[in-house]
Amino acid sequence: MDRKSVAGRRVLTGFRPTGPLHIGHLFGNLKNLVDLQAETEVFVFVADWHMLSTDFDRSESLPRNTWDLVADLVSAGIDPDRTSIYRQSDLPEVAELCLYFSMITPISWLERNPTYKEQLANLDGREIATHGFLGYPILQGADIVIVGGEVVPVGDDQLPHLEITREVVRRFHHLFGGDFFPEPLGLLGESPRVPGSDGRKMSKSYGNAIFLADSASDVDEKVKSYVTDPEKIRLNDPGHPRVCNVFAIHELVSSTEEVEVVRAECEGGERGCVACKAELSARLNNVLEPLRDRRRDLESAPEKVEQILDGGYARAKPIAAAMVAKAREQVGVACSRSAASSGDVRGAAK
Amino acid sequence: MDRKSVAGRRVLTGFRPTGPLHIGHLFGNLKNLVDLQAETEVFVFVADWHMLSTDFDRSESLPRNTWDLVADLVSAGIDPDRTSIYRQSDLPEVAELCLYFSMITPISWLERNPTYKEQLANLDGREIATHGFLGYPILQGADIVIVGGEVVPVGDDQLPHLEITREVVRRFHHLFGGDFFPEPLGLLGESPRVPGSDGRKMSKSYGNAIFLADSASDVDEKVKSYVTDPEKIRLNDPGHPRVCNVFAIHELVSSTEEVEVVRAECEGGERGCVACKAELSARLNNVLEPLRDRRRDLESAPEKVEQILDGGYARAKPIAAAMVAKAREQVGVACSRSAASSGDVRGAAK
Repeated sequence: MDRKSVAGRRVLTGFRPTGPLHIGHLFGNLKNLVDLQAETEVFVFVADWHMLSTDFDRSESLPRNTWDLVADLVSAGIDPDRTSIYRQSDLPEVAELCLYFSMITPISWLERNPTYKEQLANLDGREIATHGFLGYPILQGADIVIVGGEVVPVGDDQLPHLEITREVVRRFHHLFGGDFFPEPLGLLGESPRVPGSDGRKMSKSYGNAIFLADSASDVDEKVKSYVTDPEKIRLNDPGHPRVCNVFAIHELVSSTEEVEVVRAECEGGERGCVACKAELSARLNNVLEPLRDRRRDLESAPEKVEQILDGGYARAKPIAAAMVAKAREQVGVACSRSAASSGDVRGAAK
Repeated sequence: MDRKSVAGRRVLTGFRPTGPLHIGHLFGNLKNLVDLQAETEVFVFVADWHMLSTDFDRSESLPRNTWDLVADLVSAGIDPDRTSIYRQSDLPEVAELCLYFSMITPISWLERNPTYKEQLANLDGREIATHGFLGYPILQGADIVIVGGEVVPVGDDQLPHLEITREVVRRFHHLFGGDFFPEPLGLLGESPRVPGSDGRKMSKSYGNAIFLADSASDVDEKVKSYVTDPEKIRLNDPGHPRVCNVFAIHELVSSTEEVEVVRAECEGGERGCVACKAELSARLNNVLEPLRDRRRDLESAPEKVEQILDGGYARAKPIAAAMVAKAREQVGVACSRSAASSGDVRGAAK
């Protein structure tokens, strides 16, 4: 959908709590979310159940990773007063809706999902071909519509999942009646190339990432380790910024004028990589310093993270409870006890 | 498992609310349950979510069918003061546990399930090959262990499902730790042959069934329509009780002495089928009369059914909430809000 049509629609996205976020996230979807929260309602959830679909053997790190993820989000500028940050597993309604969707979703829809077989192939070392893994788009669909999510920031690879969600929603309405679930649309955000130190796409699993939580000296060290233009050996060799990973990061953290200076000096052989990296480190640390301030606030009062999740829960829970009550009504399953229980937000929150 | 080892273990079974129960159920699993409830704790649930896996297109009849099912169970002698009768969908914990099990159950375990492909073949007219239908044994496993069910009365065809449940439970404990879910065992009960009026196995879908809710005159009419020994044409022809459908029912409702009289008179050509059927009707109606009395009680105060489900809920809910809390702890998902909400039985029940 068009970026300009977002205002007035509820945006939803989730992050799997599998480890620290890096500057690839910061200049990609985190920046998009920070922009979006200024214009419309945004819901962000910690996808702890999703983690089980591929990493069930590492679930002992979930509590720690959840804290880290919320700290990363908040430090990156997601404002918990504007944006509802909540934990997926705090809404058992998601599991119930997932069950209803599971009952009406043909296996063929899931098997034709291009990312399914790709992921299967990539993860073949782990016992991953589970019923839940096949049903990943169903759970994702439940996540989205349980809180009335209308717009989902996505990469290209996620568009087929959203298409399944829309089909499942239409099928639910067709079979059981009603018209209360949104048919969520994908929003393709800007995602600049953010190379890691080895020139590959930045990724925790490649060991080439600069994390939001890195200290200034960590950043210095990591930037020093970046691979630059392989044809620029000596300080005065003319360089090729277009192929340089350090230049790619300059483009993200330096002003337009500064970028032009870097380019001209590099191409003119007037700038060595060591000095160029030192300049980049300084600028990147400038960008990251406010993030570190916000993180320090949370580290000095770590219970704030749970309070943030309390706040997101308080906003998401009534929506989810009402959505499941409607689904139950259409499905024909009695509502009374569940609705009484799920809707009791004050009684439920500690 | 051995019938004698049941005492002290929790027995669990579910019925899909797809229509009225008949005397095939009465002389089979209902009789077994009535016997079991005298010896041990029995939980019986209305499997309304399971109905969605094959009959999602008929869900509008769920409320009515749920009432009928509970009335059938109680009229057949399931005593709600001894046996906890509850509605599956009143325990959203089942859906959550189902999600966890789904995440760790390899698709291959489900596809190798012999009843899966058989059912697929039988139901090919409906769009049945859904993710939820494939996961039927997962939901069934969650149903059983969520309330700590240790023994499940089954037919032969259900044993593979129970084997999957045990494997899933072992896998959960292996992956996440803990040892709190039972590994439920199957109990093969007596299941006498109960032919329908056309000689085939009694089944609602064959239109050959005598229902628990049938009136005495309904029973008279249906018994009159029974196919008997095709070689016994005239009243004085000697009959062959072994192949006679009426005789098969006599064996269920008449005393040993009475059965011997029927057999001797039939084989000796001293008994016509019309008289034999009249005798059977009278005896069958004798058996069904106390059931009709209990049903009349419920019909005169139909809200009693919901009160029975309230009672079963009050017993099942704390067990289910505690079980999910343990599962969450092992999985690493935070417990607080869900446990506070799910455990709040008084707040939740109306």
